[in-house]
Amino acid sequence: MGFHMANNLVAKTDNKIIIHDVFKPSVDRFMSHNREGSSRANAIDIASNPKEVAERAAVVITMLPATPQVESVYMGNNGLVEGVRSDSLVIDCSTVDVLCAKAMASEVVNKGGKAVDAPVSGGIGGAQAGTLTFMVGADSEDTFRLAEPHLQPMARKVWYCGANGNGQVAKICNNMLLGISMIGVCETMQLGVKMGMDSKLLAEIINTSTGRCWSSDTYNPVPGVLPNVPSSNGYQGGFGNTLMAKDLRLATNAANEAKSTVMLGALASQIYNQVSSTEEYAKLDFSSIFKWLQQGSGVPDRKIKD
Amino acid sequence: MGFHMANNLVAKTDNKIIIHDVFKPSVDRFMSHNREGSSRANAIDIASNPKEVAERAAVVITMLPATPQVESVYMGNNGLVEGVRSDSLVIDCSTVDVLCAKAMASEVVNKGGKAVDAPVSGGIGGAQAGTLTFMVGADSEDTFRLAEPHLQPMARKVWYCGANGNGQVAKICNNMLLGISMIGVCETMQLGVKMGMDSKLLAEIINTSTGRCWSSDTYNPVPGVLPNVPSSNGYQGGFGNTLMAKDLRLATNAANEAKSTVMLGALASQIYNQVSSTEEYAKLDFSSIFKWLQQGSGVPDRKIKD
Amino acid sequence: MGFHMANNLVAKTDNKIIIHDVFKPSVDRFMSHNREGSSRANAIDIASNPKEVAERAAVVITMLPATPQVESVYMGNNGLVEGVRSDSLVIDCSTVDVLCAKAMASEVVNKGGKAVDAPVSGGIGGAQAGTLTFMVGADSEDTFRLAEPHLQPMARKVWYCGANGNGQVAKICNNMLLGISMIGVCETMQLGVKMGMDSKLLAEIINTSTGRCWSSDTYNPVPGVLPNVPSSNGYQGGFGNTLMAKDLRLATNAANEAKSTVMLGALASQIYNQVSSTEEYAKLDFSSIFKWLQQGSGVPDRKIKD
Amino acid sequence: MGFHMANNLVAKTDNKIIIHDVFKPSVDRFMSHNREGSSRANAIDIASNPKEVAERAAVVITMLPATPQVESVYMGNNGLVEGVRSDSLVIDCSTVDVLCAKAMASEVVNKGGKAVDAPVSGGIGGAQAGTLTFMVGADSEDTFRLAEPHLQPMARKVWYCGANGNGQVAKICNNMLLGISMIGVCETMQLGVKMGMDSKLLAEIINTSTGRCWSSDTYNPVPGVLPNVPSSNGYQGGFGNTLMAKDLRLATNAANEAKSTVMLGALASQIYNQVSSTEEYAKLDFSSIFKWLQQGSGVPDRKIKD
Repeated sequence: MGFHMANNLVAKTDNKIIIHDVFKPSVDRFMSHNREGSSRANAIDIASNPKEVAERAAVVITMLPATPQVESVYMGNNGLVEGVRSDSLVIDCSTVDVLCAKAMASEVVNKGGKAVDAPVSGGIGGAQAGTLTFMVGADSEDTFRLAEPHLQPMARKVWYCGANGNGQVAKICNNMLLGISMIGVCETMQLGVKMGMDSKLLAEIINTSTGRCWSSDTYNPVPGVLPNVPSSNGYQGGFGNTLMAKDLRLATNAANEAKSTVMLGALASQIYNQVSSTEEYAKLDFSSIFKWLQQGSGVPDRKIKD
Repeated sequence: MGFHMANNLVAKTDNKIIIHDVFKPSVDRFMSHNREGSSRANAIDIASNPKEVAERAAVVITMLPATPQVESVYMGNNGLVEGVRSDSLVIDCSTVDVLCAKAMASEVVNKGGKAVDAPVSGGIGGAQAGTLTFMVGADSEDTFRLAEPHLQPMARKVWYCGANGNGQVAKICNNMLLGISMIGVCETMQLGVKMGMDSKLLAEIINTSTGRCWSSDTYNPVPGVLPNVPSSNGYQGGFGNTLMAKDLRLATNAANEAKSTVMLGALASQIYNQVSSTEEYAKLDFSSIFKWLQQGSGVPDRKIKD
Repeated sequence: MGFHMANNLVAKTDNKIIIHDVFKPSVDRFMSHNREGSSRANAIDIASNPKEVAERAAVVITMLPATPQVESVYMGNNGLVEGVRSDSLVIDCSTVDVLCAKAMASEVVNKGGKAVDAPVSGGIGGAQAGTLTFMVGADSEDTFRLAEPHLQPMARKVWYCGANGNGQVAKICNNMLLGISMIGVCETMQLGVKMGMDSKLLAEIINTSTGRCWSSDTYNPVPGVLPNVPSSNGYQGGFGNTLMAKDLRLATNAANEAKSTVMLGALASQIYNQVSSTEEYAKLDFSSIFKWLQQGSGVPDRKIKD
Repeated sequence: MGFHMANNLVAKTDNKIIIHDVFKPSVDRFMSHNREGSSRANAIDIASNPKEVAERAAVVITMLPATPQVESVYMGNNGLVEGVRSDSLVIDCSTVDVLCAKAMASEVVNKGGKAVDAPVSGGIGGAQAGTLTFMVGADSEDTFRLAEPHLQPMARKVWYCGANGNGQVAKICNNMLLGISMIGVCETMQLGVKMGMDSKLLAEIINTSTGRCWSSDTYNPVPGVLPNVPSSNGYQGGFGNTLMAKDLRLATNAANEAKSTVMLGALASQIYNQVSSTEEYAKLDFSSIFKWLQQGSGVPDRKIKD
């Protein structure tokens, strides 16, 4: 994600870009990608650690896999927070625990800077095309306005969601509902087909009725119902079961924290955890729940025994 | 439902109408409603039992509460099947077990008639306005074509779903997904609000993201998010929890029959059964799950204790 | 089951035995087994259909796989009910829908006979050893007393459960709780082991604490915790996932009928349906849920990806 | 809990006792309780904060409500860790997150002391009678042996569970299984009774069959089945729904951390969260799930509508 996002910042802004990645090859890949005949090549510098990035840049954007990495990049040795300046604006685009997002923001504020959480949806494709959706939590609309222009070059849409942490809340809420809807569509299509319905016809009826949802009309999990979706391509690409399992863990942890009842959310979380714990499904798109339901542990033809 | 559906047949066709209802006052209500200044009043006759209806009418339309009533009206003493003629077309608009729909159809066929199952969605409002959606199961497209013109006066849309019973399959599949989606939206909105999000903003984000669904963008369960939906009117009217509980029982029974795994469907069924077993919620729209989550057993303010 | 149950009746009673099985080889197997040097060989006759059994025997005992077979053996052509006499006592040991058990009993009563439902627990082993538990539903304690002596030769324990159908109710209630407990133990042991606990120690603590249950202290699903249980023998033998899935379907169908909320029961039913729909697990004991949780879709080592 | 535990230490040992509670009245209550004619009164001192306790006592025992309180008592201003000595042995009997237990232990070790986590089961009654079960996590069996004699005066049983944190693991594993079993028993008894079984008879059958568990044979949730249990006393006393909800949150958080699938555990957690969020049930024993199932939102007689 970070590679594509930074490329858009290089291509669409005049800003000087200072990059850092703990994995050196990623830095090399980025440099070579932007050196080739780019008039902006000399606008890119490399920092040796997060602290140096914060010391040299007024606006810092981070994109990391999960909570532990965010904590070490921000709070570790030579961490980002050590380098925060009084005029720093720190934007974290990672999807992490709400508590982590709030904690990192207050660490930055304690150093005199400003911080927002800005998790994204849209996946690799959106990052590459610069059409991500950002959900931004900030201590005030003013702070949001400061961050917005720096996200626009990478975005189709930038939402202001309220207080710090609310960017994460909006993201996990949407993805919890997405995870529930997708399993619901998989169970429904599987039931209808087993009862003798044509899958395209059933999808058409649902998509014009009260069962209508994105998982059915835009990302249908049944092979052949829609073209150009993972289900019609062996469940390759798309949004992996392991990523959905991660987001659902964040959602259920948040619900535990808030003592908010999420019966379907908790069950969906367990289903994705079970599925993503297998070699076969860990690699597949989250719509492969349809295949899992149909094939159980992976037998070509579901053989019912009684 | 039957009252409104029959009114449309009187108003929009030139057919002679022969009615029967085991509950005499319903017949009286229908007659008085259609007598007042109606040029068609003399086109309506009353039959004393289902058998007589079948003997006198080439096309018979039934609309009944559930499987037991369908079985007794079709197979009971002076039942509809006794009166079936070689040119009979029997259309059952009730929502019943798939097995029941298939069985009643074959009883009619055994008497030389034709039969289709044609359950509806759209509720009382759709029945009154003549904008119902019919999902039709028939032994052939020819039989479907025979039934279609008789449903049109009551319909916005008439679907041909395939073999006898498939009308029921399409209906319970859509409603199972609807029940899952609605609980998913209720849990999601409840979680977001408890985490500090504004409910209208969260709904707006979801409705333009991958969590988008009818339960969120057209029938949102949070009071005040949308006008003119039950949630903004004390959860009055709409589609009752008891009706959703019934449809989810039909769906899970069908899944048991087909040995099709419906984890979220089965849990949604239990949630609606639990909710609809209470005085308070039995009367409310199925979006009142939001209120149930928020208020637990109905305390005005959810007080968390730990 | 029937083979072993009938052997005990031959061995432990002086009654003449008239047998029938639609599958001829089963009859041959039974005859040859009891011919070899058995003084009782001449006490066994073969009937050509269920009707003949009922005509010739005052006490009829049936043991069949599921509801459809019971319906055809009792109500089919040359079915058992056709042969029922005014002095007949019909004992059905099959595990079937409560509605089916009640219906078959009333068919027998309509012919002037008496009927009880008497499903068993104890499995093949109990059938062979004559140590089955019978749960008996009968119209009165007198009828129960008539049936009891005929079950004793095959039983360790014979319960009188009340009205016709209650034998089935007791059986599916116990087995629903068993299915829930077993999955609960599998999840708990799996969690504890993944968190670093020794499996034998955790089992010992649980078995002396409030989590104690038969699935943990007598039939522990973790290989090596107990000797001589399926989990310590590759999950071979025991009570198959498909049989548990069947009993849980009966339980959830009954709950739908009674509008009784069974949230964990419904989810357990779906889990066993999912597991038993696979080649690998359909053959294994119902404690193999532990293996399923540990291996996901059957990969030797659970590899977590995030 | 702490009040009763400390009383046993005063009564059954010769040790000098130094107490602290942030809530002054608790300290007064304890002093007056032990002053009345107790020869040990002068053996009790009051410390003004956790740090002072650690400075003055070689063995420190803490019993706190939940993770946040443990964190502030150990790490806060004048916190326990500040006072830890090279010969300190710190025993935390609170039920907290496994991660918290491990973190607090290493804080103590960093100060040169030794630490064990020793959560209890047995409730207020066990604390008063000195019959608690302690589940102890320690860095070595030697450290466990140091702690054991100090727990014995309060204990019926002291388990060594392995590494630091394993005491918490054992506790939440047992309680997760307990929560699942109890809901399973409630659903099963409710189903059986609605199907016409006598509750005492059904319990007797289950308790001698494979459904047998502590929740059924020792703590049955159906009023009247057992004497002297909460269910036979209006669900008063016992182990509250809010405490079970808390332990299930700890269990599901741990499962999220370990990526261990807990489908029934996650659903049980949500059910207890929903129930404990209501005025009525927050006060009741965790077996009141039976009442909740029977009465939905608290209507005296479950009225089914369809």
